[in-house]
Amino acid sequence: MKNELDYIAGRIEKYISDTKKITATPGQGVTRLPFTLESKRCVHYLEEKMKNMGLAVTEDASGAIIGILEGKSEQRIMIGSHYDSVEHGGAYDGMAGILCGLEIAAYYIRNQMIPPYTLEIAGLNDEEGDRFGGGYLSSKAFLGKWTTNDLKYYIDKHGISYYDAMILYGYAPEHLMRAERPRKGWKGYLEIHVEQGPIMESQGIEIGIVETIVAIQRYYITIVGKADHAGTQPMDTRSDAVMAAMDVITNMRKYVLKHKGMVGTVGEIHVYPNEINIVPEKITFSIDVRSADQEWLDECVHQISEDIKKKEMKGFTCEMKPTLTNTVTAMKEEWVKGLEKSADRLGFSNMRINSGAGHDAAIIGKEVDTAMLFVPSVGGRSHIPEEYSDERDLAKAVLTAIDFIDHIDEERKSE
Amino acid sequence: MKNELDYIAGRIEKYISDTKKITATPGQGVTRLPFTLESKRCVHYLEEKMKNMGLAVTEDASGAIIGILEGKSEQRIMIGSHYDSVEHGGAYDGMAGILCGLEIAAYYIRNQMIPPYTLEIAGLNDEEGDRFGGGYLSSKAFLGKWTTNDLKYYIDKHGISYYDAMILYGYAPEHLMRAERPRKGWKGYLEIHVEQGPIMESQGIEIGIVETIVAIQRYYITIVGKADHAGTQPMDTRSDAVMAAMDVITNMRKYVLKHKGMVGTVGEIHVYPNEINIVPEKITFSIDVRSADQEWLDECVHQISEDIKKKEMKGFTCEMKPTLTNTVTAMKEEWVKGLEKSADRLGFSNMRINSGAGHDAAIIGKEVDTAMLFVPSVGGRSHIPEEYSDERDLAKAVLTAIDFIDHIDEERKSE
Repeated sequence: MKNELDYIAGRIEKYISDTKKITATPGQGVTRLPFTLESKRCVHYLEEKMKNMGLAVTEDASGAIIGILEGKSEQRIMIGSHYDSVEHGGAYDGMAGILCGLEIAAYYIRNQMIPPYTLEIAGLNDEEGDRFGGGYLSSKAFLGKWTTNDLKYYIDKHGISYYDAMILYGYAPEHLMRAERPRKGWKGYLEIHVEQGPIMESQGIEIGIVETIVAIQRYYITIVGKADHAGTQPMDTRSDAVMAAMDVITNMRKYVLKHKGMVGTVGEIHVYPNEINIVPEKITFSIDVRSADQEWLDECVHQISEDIKKKEMKGFTCEMKPTLTNTVTAMKEEWVKGLEKSADRLGFSNMRINSGAGHDAAIIGKEVDTAMLFVPSVGGRSHIPEEYSDERDLAKAVLTAIDFIDHIDEERKSE
Repeated sequence: MKNELDYIAGRIEKYISDTKKITATPGQGVTRLPFTLESKRCVHYLEEKMKNMGLAVTEDASGAIIGILEGKSEQRIMIGSHYDSVEHGGAYDGMAGILCGLEIAAYYIRNQMIPPYTLEIAGLNDEEGDRFGGGYLSSKAFLGKWTTNDLKYYIDKHGISYYDAMILYGYAPEHLMRAERPRKGWKGYLEIHVEQGPIMESQGIEIGIVETIVAIQRYYITIVGKADHAGTQPMDTRSDAVMAAMDVITNMRKYVLKHKGMVGTVGEIHVYPNEINIVPEKITFSIDVRSADQEWLDECVHQISEDIKKKEMKGFTCEMKPTLTNTVTAMKEEWVKGLEKSADRLGFSNMRINSGAGHDAAIIGKEVDTAMLFVPSVGGRSHIPEEYSDERDLAKAVLTAIDFIDHIDEERKSE
């Protein structure tokens, strides 16, 4: 098995080094935003790999690229992750999971084995939501969750909506509902992903088996006050948008720090007119809050909206635009146990873990049996050019997944 | 005198309407940044006006345009203001003072009178500091305050320094010291300017006579922490640059609000990487603090630098880059009294007032006898496209200044 592990690790390393080069920001990390030249090039890369392996390849209306390996049963297990990245992100987030999926299929083909179920190796589009603020494009499309209105609602920094971007990319946004996949015959979804946090590395664990994916809510908050001269307008007659935003952010942070495991981030700030000597008229800032406890999260967001109302009563014009609302998603307990047994069987140290990051598995897991495997992130860091996971750890997840698939019916029988 | 007032007001109205069009942002206020096409066009406009009036015109190494009207004495009184604007500013700030200066000269020429002193009608360059963060380019140049190092220190948003911008504009930055004006024979500096605040309008006053210009300090503060995934990095292991900045800004505001008449503004914020789902690695924000009490201001800045040190002790890398340090400037008391007598003589309601805004008069007033006249700002608002002052009020300031110049020696004798 050691030889197999090294062999798979070597292949993944090669593919990571290939896909790392598909970026809009060479030398400054991976930037592969949806519906760009880079995303097209990446799909072509994956398509070629799949075809060369002998998989039947389809590209769906959301931009997902799927390679099918027929199994003993027509029932399908999808093994996937996303090929888009954040701006100046790393080479592993998303892409590593797709490459692991390809290695699972390659293992069966190489060993002339037929998997017990039909495998769909999938590269999903726009999980991150980095360009349009939405995200989970393909995973939501698989479940038929998109409407044309939604596609027009999410817009990028240049004012281009999902809808327009899809047309420019040669897609037909009106046809996105065709990407919905029949639930009948869809046995489950398995995603391998880097942890993106420091927990597994700090405990020396090889395989993380996700139990729960946290709830996430994201908003863009805009506060509009009044522009004034920074010297001549007395403090008590100002409507300073930045100062108003500061109160909202300070309160958000207080709340988050009081609730264990919760996180809150203001990652994006835009000030207008953004001049050193003008009292700011307008600020738009993002809020990203997450918790494994749905009630805590809802209460935090309620408090933020109350703070916004207070600012409105003081004469500010405010908007709180939701861009993402994910509730807590539990992984399929039967699969979690099966993956534990597989990791044990192969002698890989493993732990149950919650995911603080959102994943396509959080969307699909609402309607389809789903499980996730985590691989340690070196330094616990992600969404940066330095992001790194050991390819041998990724190969361990591949072998665990193969063992799990091979034993999946035994698991069911033993329940 | 009413006819004279209406005549002058009409001319100023015409010139304001001309110069309002010299902007990089038509329909969105006046944007006339230093060393741009707009600043060049504005200088040509003023030069042509001056030459047509019969003034002797010179353009100095700082970009100041000066028209000279010979008087009975060779001693010079400069009457000026600045022709640059903030981004999306108004048509009156600065420019109105230059046009008033032209009207003072035009009055003498029209009435075939020779002024008691030689008048230098001056359009100064880059008072605002909106492009490079510095400002007072011409007024400091008149006093020989610039070094080549300074010119390389101030850079705009695109990384272009004063030094480089001057070369691109066809100037020789190494020759800026040639703009220094001999102090001998420089009798004084008079500046007419819109108030930019709400005080005169709210009290129904026609002429404001400035007593003191407040002290100003401006800084760009940069705090560098660590970029992390917004979901997976626990709160207690983050180095979130935005959250660190919030603490500094909150403390600054607390201090300012405790000290009467003080103002503090964070007008400009830049976050990196500025992504909704990434813990911010870096923030750069501006701080502009002002007070008529020098000690309060110094203590406030000291407190900010202490807060920055606290953040450095927590592992952040910080920089506090000063871009402006103006101490309190008192206007020449003898001239303040003279202007009060002139306004009284002409029947214009008047008051003494402090300037919360910085002006070229604050620089020049440190070494040369200086006075300022304020004209009411409608709604007290400035640095915005809607900025407006009544041209009849500007004409009243012109007549007050002429009366003052005509009686200037009597004032001295009566002391």
